[in-house]
Amino acid sequence: MHKQISSLQNPTIKKLLQLQEKSRTRKKEGLFLIEGQREISLAAKGGYKFREIYFCPDLFSSEALENLMKGFSSEVIITEISEDIYSKIAYRGGTEGVIAVAEARDLGLCNIELDKKDPLILVAEAPEKPGNIGAILRTADAAGVDAVLIANPKTDLFNPNIVRSSVGCVFTNTIATGTTSEIIAFLKERKINIYGAALQASVPYDMIDYKPGSAIVVGTEATGLSDEWLENTTQNIIIPMQGEIDSMNVSVAAGILIFEARRQRGFN
Amino acid sequence: MHKQISSLQNPTIKKLLQLQEKSRTRKKEGLFLIEGQREISLAAKGGYKFREIYFCPDLFSSEALENLMKGFSSEVIITEISEDIYSKIAYRGGTEGVIAVAEARDLGLCNIELDKKDPLILVAEAPEKPGNIGAILRTADAAGVDAVLIANPKTDLFNPNIVRSSVGCVFTNTIATGTTSEIIAFLKERKINIYGAALQASVPYDMIDYKPGSAIVVGTEATGLSDEWLENTTQNIIIPMQGEIDSMNVSVAAGILIFEARRQRGFN
Repeated sequence: MHKQISSLQNPTIKKLLQLQEKSRTRKKEGLFLIEGQREISLAAKGGYKFREIYFCPDLFSSEALENLMKGFSSEVIITEISEDIYSKIAYRGGTEGVIAVAEARDLGLCNIELDKKDPLILVAEAPEKPGNIGAILRTADAAGVDAVLIANPKTDLFNPNIVRSSVGCVFTNTIATGTTSEIIAFLKERKINIYGAALQASVPYDMIDYKPGSAIVVGTEATGLSDEWLENTTQNIIIPMQGEIDSMNVSVAAGILIFEARRQRGFN
Repeated sequence: MHKQISSLQNPTIKKLLQLQEKSRTRKKEGLFLIEGQREISLAAKGGYKFREIYFCPDLFSSEALENLMKGFSSEVIITEISEDIYSKIAYRGGTEGVIAVAEARDLGLCNIELDKKDPLILVAEAPEKPGNIGAILRTADAAGVDAVLIANPKTDLFNPNIVRSSVGCVFTNTIATGTTSEIIAFLKERKINIYGAALQASVPYDMIDYKPGSAIVVGTEATGLSDEWLENTTQNIIIPMQGEIDSMNVSVAAGILIFEARRQRGFN
């Protein structure tokens, strides 16, 4: 027998809504919400720990729930909720019927282990739009990069919009956040070449040999990389543009650069 | 002395709002709205014709307006509007202060002239999200493709959301729309190789020689390319994915593919 909640007035609902909406609550509690079977599975596979599961039996069966929880490393509290309540706490009208409360992970750089020689790393400085961050994380997953580092993040990565737009790739990638100074130090200590996407003093991106340890660094669409990055790159790189417009969508640019590196290293 | 409108009840406002919001009105009138100095300039440069200009003197100066209109090929009616009215008709809270009523263009395939030998073409089948279409058009501009063809479009390309998310690249590219059958016939008549992004019977995208006339075709994220495309490709191509997830953002995938072709052809 599971716990049940059928009233929208239940204080638990308020708590869940705050985890959904407020970065500050997520930070204070060290918890965040994951919606959807696929996303929850990917988080379990990525070693995330769960505290609670809320499911709506009209949308998600007990069998599916049992299957899903096989991937969990410890016990969780299961609560049945009505469709009304589900649609209230689900992000952007989800119809998946299952939401987990998971423990946030410390995304500090010190938690990253790069066990491969010559790692390939993607760095994004101060990315803003959750949709772009999600697309970047999907690309990083597809390219099999060794780590994604977010410098001076503007949004916490456990934001439901990022979880969703990354279709769970926020859990499949090795991710860390830090200040620009911290990440530069991290890369330099490990003798990883730094290639910053920039208009100034740059060479075409396909002129670089990405087989040694390489970090590809992209800035924001509006202002590009900060001076601190530009002063610390091994070489600036540019995607030569042939058209009327001098900027590309940042997640597309990151995809072109990281897949050129991947292509040179071979697909396997 | 310009015309002036200061009442939100003015029937012109209603007409403009309908052009903004309703694909059917745009189609019926053969007109659409372009907001912002940069977008209007790019449309003028692309040979679009204008009927009217609405500007808000508190946001956009008469000098800027005069400069902007130097690029116009014919006379237009100029109307001054208040900031209230501007914010009412501007799409998503714009602050540019200038909106043009432009003549839509016939995007039929028969209007496309491919004067270069061995053209490079990007085809997108049934793309849905305006943001993705905008990003694809920016990439196509940057890659200097010879044409962008939209098969079975779900949205009219003069949708304000596409104009905006393409930052005007809907005007800088050579664009046409048509059914999948029409576009396949168009490409085959011109002996252009067709490379469809697909999971089935495909080779890694970097194994192809894109120097001969080539069309790169991408489908939707949800269902990929239709059977009609798959039965008519010269070769299916795939971006080898190394991660947990089996799909990428469609505009990122299009960027990776089209820039591999561009790289092979050389940047100039």
